[in-house]
Amino acid sequence: MKLLEERILKDGKVFPGNVLKVDRFLNHQVDVKLLNEIGKEFYRLFKDEKVNKIFTIEASGIGIACIVAQYFDVPVVFAKKTLGKNISSNVYSTPITSFTHGRTYDVIVSQEFLNEDDRILIIDEVLAQGCALQGLISLINSAGAHIVGAGIVVEKAFQQGGELIRSQGIRVESLARVASMTDDGEITFCD
Amino acid sequence: MKLLEERILKDGKVFPGNVLKVDRFLNHQVDVKLLNEIGKEFYRLFKDEKVNKIFTIEASGIGIACIVAQYFDVPVVFAKKTLGKNISSNVYSTPITSFTHGRTYDVIVSQEFLNEDDRILIIDEVLAQGCALQGLISLINSAGAHIVGAGIVVEKAFQQGGELIRSQGIRVESLARVASMTDDGEITFCD
Repeated sequence: MKLLEERILKDGKVFPGNVLKVDRFLNHQVDVKLLNEIGKEFYRLFKDEKVNKIFTIEASGIGIACIVAQYFDVPVVFAKKTLGKNISSNVYSTPITSFTHGRTYDVIVSQEFLNEDDRILIIDEVLAQGCALQGLISLINSAGAHIVGAGIVVEKAFQQGGELIRSQGIRVESLARVASMTDDGEITFCD
Repeated sequence: MKLLEERILKDGKVFPGNVLKVDRFLNHQVDVKLLNEIGKEFYRLFKDEKVNKIFTIEASGIGIACIVAQYFDVPVVFAKKTLGKNISSNVYSTPITSFTHGRTYDVIVSQEFLNEDDRILIIDEVLAQGCALQGLISLINSAGAHIVGAGIVVEKAFQQGGELIRSQGIRVESLARVASMTDDGEITFCD
Protein backbone atom coordinates (compact mmCIF):
# COMPACT_ATOMS: atom_id res chain seq x y z
CA MET A 1 0.00 0.00 0.00
CA LYS A 2 1.82 3.03 -1.39
CA LEU A 3 0.26 5.61 0.93
CA LEU A 4 1.32 3.63 4.00
CA GLU A 5 4.88 3.02 2.76
CA GLU A 6 5.27 6.73 2.06
CA ARG A 7 4.05 7.53 5.55
CA ILE A 8 6.47 5.07 7.14
CA LEU A 9 9.34 6.67 5.21
CA LYS A 10 8.19 10.14 6.25
CA ASP A 11 7.27 9.60 9.91
CA GLY A 12 8.69 6.21 10.93
CA LYS A 13 11.80 6.22 13.09
CA VAL A 14 14.39 3.45 13.30
CA PHE A 15 16.23 2.67 16.53
CA PRO A 16 19.04 0.17 17.12
CA GLY A 17 17.87 -3.40 17.61
CA ASN A 18 15.47 -3.35 14.65
CA VAL A 19 12.99 -1.13 16.47
CA LEU A 20 10.66 0.70 14.08
CA LYS A 21 8.64 3.40 15.79
CA VAL A 22 5.38 4.29 14.08
CA ASP A 23 4.04 6.26 17.00
CA ARG A 24 3.41 9.45 15.03
CA PHE A 25 0.53 7.92 13.09
CA LEU A 26 -0.26 4.41 14.31
CA ASN A 27 0.26 3.50 17.95
CA HIS A 28 0.52 6.61 20.11
CA GLN A 29 -0.77 9.42 17.94
CA VAL A 30 -3.26 7.92 15.49
CA ASP A 31 -4.02 9.31 12.03
CA VAL A 32 -7.63 8.23 11.71
CA LYS A 33 -7.82 9.21 8.02
CA LEU A 34 -4.96 6.84 7.29
CA LEU A 35 -6.74 4.14 9.29
CA ASN A 36 -9.75 4.59 7.04
CA GLU A 37 -7.61 4.00 3.94
CA ILE A 38 -6.22 0.92 5.67
CA GLY A 39 -9.76 -0.23 6.44
CA LYS A 40 -10.80 0.13 2.79
CA GLU A 41 -7.79 -1.90 1.66
CA PHE A 42 -8.44 -4.74 4.11
CA TYR A 43 -12.07 -4.77 2.98
CA ARG A 44 -10.97 -5.03 -0.65
CA LEU A 45 -8.73 -7.98 0.25
CA PHE A 46 -11.16 -9.92 2.45
CA LYS A 47 -14.64 -8.79 1.36
CA ASP A 48 -15.62 -12.17 -0.15
CA GLU A 49 -14.73 -14.15 2.96
CA LYS A 50 -18.02 -13.69 4.85
CA VAL A 51 -16.18 -12.21 7.84
CA ASN A 52 -18.55 -11.89 10.81
CA LYS A 53 -16.10 -10.71 13.47
CA ILE A 54 -12.82 -8.80 13.72
CA PHE A 55 -10.41 -10.07 16.37
CA THR A 56 -7.42 -8.15 17.74
CA ILE A 57 -5.38 -7.62 20.89
CA GLU A 58 -5.11 -4.61 23.16
CA ALA A 59 -3.94 -1.94 23.09
CA SER A 60 -2.88 -0.47 19.75
CA GLY A 61 -4.80 -3.00 17.65
CA ILE A 62 -8.15 -1.77 18.95
CA GLY A 63 -8.33 1.52 17.08
CA ILE A 64 -7.37 -0.03 13.76
CA ALA A 65 -9.78 -2.93 14.30
CA CYS A 66 -12.70 -0.60 15.07
CA ILE A 67 -12.12 1.46 11.93
CA VAL A 68 -11.68 -1.67 9.77
CA ALA A 69 -14.84 -3.20 11.26
CA GLN A 70 -16.93 -0.33 9.90
CA TYR A 71 -16.23 -1.50 6.34
CA PHE A 72 -17.25 -5.09 7.14
CA ASP A 73 -20.21 -3.99 9.30
CA VAL A 74 -19.26 -6.46 12.04
CA PRO A 75 -18.30 -6.23 15.72
CA VAL A 76 -14.76 -6.21 17.12
CA VAL A 77 -13.54 -8.51 19.87
CA PHE A 78 -10.22 -7.74 21.48
CA ALA A 79 -8.12 -10.10 23.60
CA LYS A 80 -6.98 -8.68 26.93
CA LYS A 81 -3.56 -8.87 28.45
CA THR A 82 -4.36 -9.39 32.12
CA LEU A 83 -7.06 -11.00 34.22
CA GLY A 84 -8.80 -8.04 35.83
CA LYS A 85 -11.67 -8.28 38.29
CA ASN A 86 -14.13 -7.37 35.55
CA ILE A 87 -13.46 -10.47 33.43
CA SER A 88 -15.49 -13.59 34.11
CA SER A 89 -13.64 -16.84 34.65
CA ASN A 90 -15.08 -18.39 31.48
CA VAL A 91 -12.21 -17.45 29.21
CA TYR A 92 -9.82 -18.94 26.71
CA SER A 93 -6.26 -18.03 27.57
CA THR A 94 -2.75 -18.34 26.15
CA PRO A 95 0.68 -16.96 27.12
CA ILE A 96 2.26 -14.39 24.79
CA THR A 97 5.84 -13.17 24.94
CA SER A 98 6.38 -9.51 24.04
CA PHE A 99 9.87 -8.80 22.76
CA THR A 100 9.07 -5.11 22.82
CA HIS A 101 8.26 -5.10 26.51
CA GLY A 102 10.55 -7.98 27.45
CA ARG A 103 8.01 -10.13 29.28
CA THR A 104 5.41 -12.85 28.98
CA TYR A 105 1.78 -12.31 29.93
CA ASP A 106 -1.45 -14.21 29.73
CA VAL A 107 -3.87 -13.12 27.06
CA ILE A 108 -7.52 -13.95 27.44
CA VAL A 109 -10.81 -13.74 25.61
CA SER A 110 -14.23 -14.46 27.08
CA GLN A 111 -15.71 -17.70 25.72
CA GLU A 112 -18.91 -15.75 25.18
CA PHE A 113 -17.38 -13.78 22.30
CA LEU A 114 -15.77 -16.49 20.14
CA ASN A 115 -17.65 -19.55 18.94
CA GLU A 116 -17.41 -22.24 16.32
CA ASP A 117 -19.73 -20.54 13.83
CA ASP A 118 -17.48 -17.46 13.62
CA ARG A 119 -15.50 -16.51 10.50
CA ILE A 120 -12.79 -14.32 11.94
CA LEU A 121 -10.48 -11.75 10.44
CA ILE A 122 -7.53 -11.01 12.71
CA ILE A 123 -6.27 -7.42 12.58
CA ASP A 124 -3.01 -6.24 14.14
CA GLU A 125 -0.64 -3.32 13.69
CA VAL A 126 2.77 -4.99 13.56
CA LEU A 127 3.97 -8.52 12.71
CA ALA A 128 7.57 -9.25 13.70
CA GLN A 129 8.37 -12.45 15.63
CA GLY A 130 4.72 -13.44 15.35
CA CYS A 131 4.15 -14.12 19.04
CA ALA A 132 1.04 -11.98 19.42
CA LEU A 133 -0.49 -13.28 16.20
CA GLN A 134 0.26 -16.89 17.18
CA GLY A 135 -1.47 -16.23 20.48
CA LEU A 136 -4.58 -14.86 18.78
CA ILE A 137 -4.66 -17.90 16.47
CA SER A 138 -4.41 -20.17 19.49
CA LEU A 139 -7.39 -18.43 21.15
CA ILE A 140 -9.49 -18.77 17.99
CA ASN A 141 -8.56 -22.43 17.67
CA SER A 142 -9.58 -22.99 21.28
CA ALA A 143 -13.03 -21.73 20.35
CA GLY A 144 -13.18 -23.87 17.21
CA ALA A 145 -13.83 -20.79 15.06
CA HIS A 146 -12.68 -20.37 11.46
CA ILE A 147 -9.77 -18.05 10.67
CA VAL A 148 -10.34 -16.20 7.41
CA GLY A 149 -6.90 -14.61 7.58
CA ALA A 150 -4.82 -11.92 9.23
CA GLY A 151 -4.63 -8.29 8.12
CA ILE A 152 -1.40 -6.69 9.29
CA VAL A 153 -0.52 -3.03 8.89
CA VAL A 154 3.29 -3.30 9.07
CA GLU A 155 5.21 -6.57 8.69
CA LYS A 156 8.92 -6.77 9.44
CA ALA A 157 9.50 -9.27 6.64
CA PHE A 158 13.11 -9.86 7.70
CA GLN A 159 11.88 -11.45 10.92
CA GLN A 160 10.32 -14.89 11.14
CA GLY A 161 6.71 -14.22 12.16
CA GLY A 162 5.17 -13.94 8.70
CA GLU A 163 6.77 -17.15 7.43
CA LEU A 164 5.84 -18.98 10.62
CA ILE A 165 2.16 -18.09 10.33
CA ARG A 166 1.89 -18.55 6.54
CA SER A 167 3.49 -22.00 6.81
CA GLN A 168 0.44 -23.00 8.88
CA GLY A 169 -1.74 -22.30 5.84
CA ILE A 170 -3.09 -19.02 7.21
CA ARG A 171 -3.56 -16.16 4.78
CA VAL A 172 -1.56 -13.14 5.95
CA GLU A 173 -1.99 -9.81 4.12
CA SER A 174 0.44 -7.10 5.19
CA LEU A 175 -0.07 -3.61 3.81
CA ALA A 176 3.59 -2.64 4.20
CA ARG A 177 6.35 -5.27 4.26
CA VAL A 178 9.65 -3.90 5.54
CA ALA A 179 12.55 -5.73 3.85
CA SER A 180 15.34 -4.06 5.78
CA MET A 181 16.17 -1.28 8.22
CA THR A 182 19.60 0.14 8.96
CA ASP A 183 20.77 1.86 12.12
CA ASP A 184 21.09 4.99 9.96
CA GLY A 185 17.33 4.96 9.64
CA GLU A 186 17.10 3.73 6.07
CA ILE A 187 14.04 1.59 5.38
CA THR A 188 13.37 -0.55 2.30
CA PHE A 189 10.21 -2.45 1.41
CA CYS A 190 9.60 -5.80 -0.26
CA ASP A 191 8.38 -5.52 -3.87
CA MET B 1 -28.57 9.04 25.34
CA LYS B 2 -31.58 6.75 25.15
CA LEU B 3 -30.02 4.14 22.82
CA LEU B 4 -27.05 3.69 25.16
CA GLU B 5 -29.19 3.45 28.31
CA GLU B 6 -31.34 0.80 26.65
CA ARG B 7 -28.23 -1.13 25.68
CA ILE B 8 -26.84 -0.97 29.23
CA LEU B 9 -30.16 -2.29 30.57
CA LYS B 10 -30.18 -5.09 27.97
CA ASP B 11 -26.52 -6.17 27.97
CA GLY B 12 -24.88 -4.63 31.04
CA LYS B 13 -24.22 -6.92 33.99
CA VAL B 14 -23.95 -5.87 37.62
CA PHE B 15 -21.61 -7.62 40.05
CA PRO B 16 -21.20 -7.07 43.81
CA GLY B 17 -18.97 -4.12 44.70
CA ASN B 18 -20.62 -1.75 42.22
CA VAL B 19 -18.98 -3.44 39.22
CA LEU B 20 -20.86 -2.76 35.98
CA LYS B 21 -19.69 -4.95 33.12
CA VAL B 22 -20.27 -3.51 29.67
CA ASP B 23 -18.04 -6.02 27.93
CA ARG B 24 -20.70 -7.23 25.49
CA PHE B 25 -20.71 -3.97 23.56
CA LEU B 26 -18.05 -1.58 24.86
CA ASN B 27 -14.81 -2.95 26.28
CA HIS B 28 -14.24 -6.53 25.19
CA GLN B 29 -16.67 -7.10 22.35
CA VAL B 30 -17.26 -3.74 20.68
CA ASP B 31 -20.45 -2.74 18.83
CA VAL B 32 -18.97 -0.36 16.29
CA LYS B 33 -22.40 0.83 15.10
CA LEU B 34 -23.18 1.94 18.65
CA LEU B 35 -19.78 3.68 18.80
CA ASN B 36 -20.76 5.63 15.69
CA GLU B 37 -23.95 6.84 17.38
CA ILE B 38 -21.81 7.81 20.37
CA GLY B 39 -19.42 9.65 18.06
CA LYS B 40 -22.27 11.63 16.49
CA GLU B 41 -23.55 12.62 19.94
CA PHE B 42 -20.15 13.82 21.18
CA TYR B 43 -19.77 15.79 17.96
CA ARG B 44 -23.16 17.42 18.53
CA LEU B 45 -22.09 18.38 22.06
CA PHE B 46 -18.58 19.67 21.30
CA LYS B 47 -18.65 20.69 17.63
CA ASP B 48 -18.30 24.43 18.31
CA GLU B 49 -15.24 24.03 20.51
CA LYS B 50 -12.59 23.95 17.74
CA VAL B 51 -11.29 20.59 18.96
CA ASN B 52 -8.02 19.71 17.20
CA LYS B 53 -7.11 16.52 19.05
CA ILE B 54 -8.86 13.68 20.89
CA PHE B 55 -7.03 12.38 23.95
CA THR B 56 -7.69 9.06 25.68
CA ILE B 57 -5.99 6.25 27.59
CA GLU B 58 -5.30 2.68 26.56
CA ALA B 59 -6.82 0.25 26.21
CA SER B 60 -10.60 0.39 25.88
CA GLY B 61 -10.71 4.13 25.24
CA ILE B 62 -8.83 3.82 21.97
CA GLY B 63 -11.59 2.30 19.86
CA ILE B 64 -14.16 4.83 21.02
CA ALA B 65 -11.72 7.70 20.54
CA CYS B 66 -10.89 6.64 16.97
CA ILE B 67 -14.55 6.44 15.97
CA VAL B 68 -15.33 9.78 17.65
CA ALA B 69 -12.32 11.41 15.96
CA GLN B 70 -13.81 10.68 12.52
CA TYR B 71 -16.64 13.14 13.23
CA PHE B 72 -14.23 15.88 14.30
CA ASP B 73 -11.71 15.04 11.54
CA VAL B 74 -8.80 15.20 13.99
CA PRO B 75 -6.11 12.76 15.20
CA VAL B 76 -6.24 10.69 18.38
CA VAL B 77 -3.49 10.58 20.98
CA PHE B 78 -3.64 7.90 23.62
CA ALA B 79 -1.72 7.82 26.90
CA LYS B 80 0.14 4.59 27.61
CA LYS B 81 0.22 2.65 30.83
CA THR B 82 3.82 1.48 30.94
CA LEU B 83 7.22 2.65 29.78
CA GLY B 84 8.02 0.23 26.96
CA LYS B 85 11.28 0.24 25.00
CA ASN B 86 9.48 1.87 22.07
CA ILE B 87 8.66 5.08 23.95
CA SER B 88 11.13 7.92 23.93
CA SER B 89 12.20 9.42 27.23
CA ASN B 90 10.68 12.81 26.37
CA VAL B 91 7.34 12.16 28.00
CA TYR B 92 4.91 13.69 30.42
CA SER B 93 3.96 11.18 33.10
CA THR B 94 1.59 10.81 36.03
CA PRO B 95 0.62 7.96 38.36
CA ILE B 96 -2.92 6.57 38.08
CA THR B 97 -4.60 4.20 40.52
CA SER B 98 -6.96 1.66 38.98
CA PHE B 99 -9.61 0.44 41.42
CA THR B 100 -10.71 -2.14 38.85
CA HIS B 101 -7.28 -3.73 38.69
CA GLY B 102 -6.22 -2.86 42.23
CA ARG B 103 -2.92 -1.22 41.40
CA THR B 104 -1.14 2.02 40.53
CA TYR B 105 0.80 2.49 37.30
CA ASP B 106 2.56 5.30 35.53
CA VAL B 107 0.78 6.75 32.53
CA ILE B 108 2.78 8.58 29.91
CA VAL B 109 2.36 10.62 26.76
CA SER B 110 5.14 11.74 24.45
CA GLN B 111 5.78 15.48 24.67
CA GLU B 112 5.73 15.47 20.87
CA PHE B 113 1.99 14.86 20.76
CA LEU B 114 0.61 17.43 23.22
CA ASN B 115 1.44 21.11 23.02
CA GLU B 116 0.16 24.43 24.23
CA ASP B 117 -1.74 25.27 21.05
CA ASP B 118 -3.92 22.18 21.35
CA ARG B 119 -7.64 22.28 22.12
CA ILE B 120 -8.26 18.83 23.49
CA LEU B 121 -11.38 16.74 23.93
CA ILE B 122 -10.82 13.87 26.36
CA ILE B 123 -12.77 10.70 25.58
CA ASP B 124 -13.11 7.75 27.94
CA GLU B 125 -15.47 4.86 28.39
CA VAL B 126 -16.22 4.90 32.12
CA LEU B 127 -16.03 7.57 34.82
CA ALA B 128 -16.24 6.27 38.39
CA GLN B 129 -13.70 7.45 40.98
CA GLY B 130 -12.20 9.74 38.35
CA CYS B 131 -8.60 8.58 38.72
CA ALA B 132 -7.95 7.92 35.04
CA LEU B 133 -9.62 11.16 33.98
CA GLN B 134 -7.69 13.15 36.59
CA GLY B 135 -4.49 11.61 35.24
CA LEU B 136 -5.31 12.62 31.68
CA ILE B 137 -6.08 16.17 32.84
CA SER B 138 -2.75 16.27 34.63
CA LEU B 139 -0.89 15.21 31.46
CA ILE B 140 -2.68 17.90 29.41
CA ASN B 141 -1.90 20.52 32.03
CA SER B 142 1.77 19.49 31.95
CA ALA B 143 1.76 20.31 28.24
CA GLY B 144 -0.03 23.62 28.78
CA ALA B 145 -2.78 22.60 26.36
CA HIS B 146 -6.40 23.69 26.62
CA ILE B 147 -9.04 21.19 27.78
CA VAL B 148 -12.29 21.66 25.91
CA GLY B 149 -14.02 19.03 28.01
CA ALA B 150 -14.43 15.32 28.62
CA GLY B 151 -16.81 13.03 26.77
CA ILE B 152 -17.63 9.98 28.87
CA VAL B 153 -19.70 7.02 27.69
CA VAL B 154 -20.85 5.70 31.07
CA GLU B 155 -20.64 7.66 34.33
CA LYS B 156 -21.30 6.04 37.68
CA ALA B 157 -22.92 9.15 39.05
CA PHE B 158 -23.14 7.70 42.57
CA GLN B 159 -19.35 7.75 42.78
CA GLN B 160 -17.27 10.88 43.25
CA GLY B 161 -15.34 11.21 39.98
CA GLY B 162 -17.81 13.34 38.05
CA GLU B 163 -18.28 15.84 40.88
CA LEU B 164 -14.52 15.98 41.48
CA ILE B 165 -13.74 16.85 37.86
CA ARG B 166 -16.68 19.23 37.33
CA SER B 167 -15.72 21.14 40.50
CA GLN B 168 -12.46 22.05 38.72
CA GLY B 169 -14.50 23.88 36.09
CA ILE B 170 -14.08 21.18 33.46
CA ARG B 171 -17.06 20.41 31.25
CA VAL B 172 -17.95 16.71 31.57
CA GLU B 173 -20.60 15.26 29.25
CA SER B 174 -21.63 11.69 30.06
CA LEU B 175 -23.95 9.91 27.65
CA ALA B 176 -25.33 7.58 30.32
CA ARG B 177 -25.29 8.51 34.00
CA VAL B 178 -25.98 5.56 36.29
CA ALA B 179 -27.79 6.72 39.44
CA SER B 180 -27.82 3.38 41.22
CA MET B 181 -27.10 -0.31 40.84
CA THR B 182 -28.33 -3.07 43.14
CA ASP B 183 -26.73 -6.48 43.72
CA ASP B 184 -29.87 -7.92 42.08
CA GLY B 185 -28.72 -6.32 38.85
CA GLU B 186 -31.19 -3.42 38.79
CA ILE B 187 -29.83 -0.27 37.16
CA THR B 188 -31.36 3.21 37.26
CA PHE B 189 -30.21 6.32 35.43
CA CYS B 190 -30.15 10.00 36.41
CA ASP B 191 -32.87 12.09 34.76
